[in-house]
Amino acid sequence: MPSDVVNLADKLARFSEHWSPRVVAEVNDYQLKLAKFEGEFVWHTHEDTDEAFLVLEGSMRIEFRDGVAHLAEGDLCVVPKGTEHRPCADRECHVLLIEPRGVVNTGDVVGELRAANDVWV
Amino acid sequence: MPSDVVNLADKLARFSEHWSPRVVAEVNDYQLKLAKFEGEFVWHTHEDTDEAFLVLEGSMRIEFRDGVAHLAEGDLCVVPKGTEHRPCADRECHVLLIEPRGVVNTGDVVGELRAANDVWV
Repeated sequence: MPSDVVNLADKLARFSEHWSPRVVAEVNDYQLKLAKFEGEFVWHTHEDTDEAFLVLEGSMRIEFRDGVAHLAEGDLCVVPKGTEHRPCADRECHVLLIEPRGVVNTGDVVGELRAANDVWV
Repeated sequence: MPSDVVNLADKLARFSEHWSPRVVAEVNDYQLKLAKFEGEFVWHTHEDTDEAFLVLEGSMRIEFRDGVAHLAEGDLCVVPKGTEHRPCADRECHVLLIEPRGVVNTGDVVGELRAANDVWV
């Protein structure tokens, strides 16, 4: 059979680190990544790509310089490329990210929250 | 604010047709589509692209010529490009599809189940 089935809850149970996306599948040169958010991330920008956030469990917000997007379970938000943003979650939130292979979590910012890229779970 | 928040359940409530994907968001040139499956689709192939299926509610299977992938809620399966497959669902199943803009639901097959492409909800 050409394709495995991936269960998102099973994959989420395999890591606990916050702000450290794990790849679970690829669609051509795009990656689907699971991440656990808690606290405030860094303000950053992805200059070359949009980035989709789908909340699987919990709630979070994406702060923009001119507003805030509040996301609960089942909510989806696409941050347009070149748009400064800061993901935040008051309590742990589980998120599916959809973006091209090679996107680094902190975008244009280098700092302690920059996670290793292309790590699979 | 640069981005709207899309609730998948709200979008799913806005259409009832089976095998008729509706676009809810774009990530660069990729589309996220909601679909409702029930019954047996047609065998078909997407020669130029992978196609991701994420089950949001219910269960379904993807038949391949050499096996079957069974998907329940929270399960994800990527059909590799060039791979003949047939999605089926014994009861209505709600699915998130992730694939490049322009992908036609029946791939290489023209028939009554071919849906209009790029229809948003």
